[in-house]
Amino acid sequence: MSLFPKTTRNRLQRHPDRGHYDRATITPIIDEAQICYVGFETEGQPFVIPTLHARDGDALLLHGTPASRLMQHIGHGQPVSIAMALLDGLVLARSIFSHSINYRSVVLFGRGRLLETPAEKLRALRIISEHLMPGRWDETRPPSHRELAATAVARLEIESATAKIRSGPPVDQQSDVALPVWTGIVPMQQQMLAPIPAPDLAPNIPLSPAVRQWLDTDTNDE
Amino acid sequence: MSLFPKTTRNRLQRHPDRGHYDRATITPIIDEAQICYVGFETEGQPFVIPTLHARDGDALLLHGTPASRLMQHIGHGQPVSIAMALLDGLVLARSIFSHSINYRSVVLFGRGRLLETPAEKLRALRIISEHLMPGRWDETRPPSHRELAATAVARLEIESATAKIRSGPPVDQQSDVALPVWTGIVPMQQQMLAPIPAPDLAPNIPLSPAVRQWLDTDTNDE
Repeated sequence: MSLFPKTTRNRLQRHPDRGHYDRATITPIIDEAQICYVGFETEGQPFVIPTLHARDGDALLLHGTPASRLMQHIGHGQPVSIAMALLDGLVLARSIFSHSINYRSVVLFGRGRLLETPAEKLRALRIISEHLMPGRWDETRPPSHRELAATAVARLEIESATAKIRSGPPVDQQSDVALPVWTGIVPMQQQMLAPIPAPDLAPNIPLSPAVRQWLDTDTNDE
Repeated sequence: MSLFPKTTRNRLQRHPDRGHYDRATITPIIDEAQICYVGFETEGQPFVIPTLHARDGDALLLHGTPASRLMQHIGHGQPVSIAMALLDGLVLARSIFSHSINYRSVVLFGRGRLLETPAEKLRALRIISEHLMPGRWDETRPPSHRELAATAVARLEIESATAKIRSGPPVDQQSDVALPVWTGIVPMQQQMLAPIPAPDLAPNIPLSPAVRQWLDTDTNDE
């Protein structure tokens, strides 16, 4: 089993049974999450910034404006922590204390650097784009030299990571099982709705293949 | 207009037109978000921890195990940053550079303290429970003294906050408008699915009113 190193930094203190340190558990959560939350501190002040991401092997790719606090911080090689969580459902027990949520989360640690050459920036931006919108890159006008220069792209090697997962039904204490309280789970999921054309879309332009993928996910279930 | 103070800490550097500092914009985002991401640093190492929350006026309430790194940090009065984001849709432009997402996010800053008395802990836990599961508290067995003692509850005064919002259709450069590329948005939303009874639920126990609220949200639209 391919493991990220387990240290005091990423070892779970609470519910150690929910902790996972293997790539086979961690990487699908990173790949399914649509956004991540990057935490760092500058001059004694912590910041958490939500942003888009994509995984490239054992690295995480981020982009932003070159002037941003986050990109400046990463550019200086400072440490960051990045979290992402997928919510799978509410867990409704018979006692309020045993209520929970089903989730899959990852917290990872690393340091990054800003990519320098247009070629490596272009490659990374394409991976970020493909993560959220597979196939879309090839349907659209690619970045100009000016646009590429206006975008900072960071690559963080993941030094350490933990996944934390809760799944399954509620677990009540034995002494609560006879209580006349409805118990179970309420699943939740992120749902993509039918695409809405821009007001200035010319009427003769059909939905493109990359956009039709979101039509297929939910609408075709009806 | 009721504003949170605007300082170098929370002023937006990028897309200042997307920044909002008034309570009327910020508090509904905090209230709609199901989880938050708490960032802090100890001994030179940043951490970001996903956790449940609720708002109580200008304060944020969090809970956890007393031994957790997060609760220890807050208990020592150290600064934290907390972010949350709601994803509203993909924004598909004609150039890849003009792609974006529609979202409503908040980043806030403050310091907290751990609540001491059982009465104030009980009140805060009820607010956290009502945030995610309105009405559920009164349907279930309340916390015992032992359970209450095993739960740390933190209250953070929000000293400073920024909301960042993008909405609406894509905005392409004028020179791209004639490109034959489908453009528009793909809305997304968090969806609650039909409740699933626990395997050990007695067959004579009906869905409770608090659980039926999730039946109503989506299923009745059909």
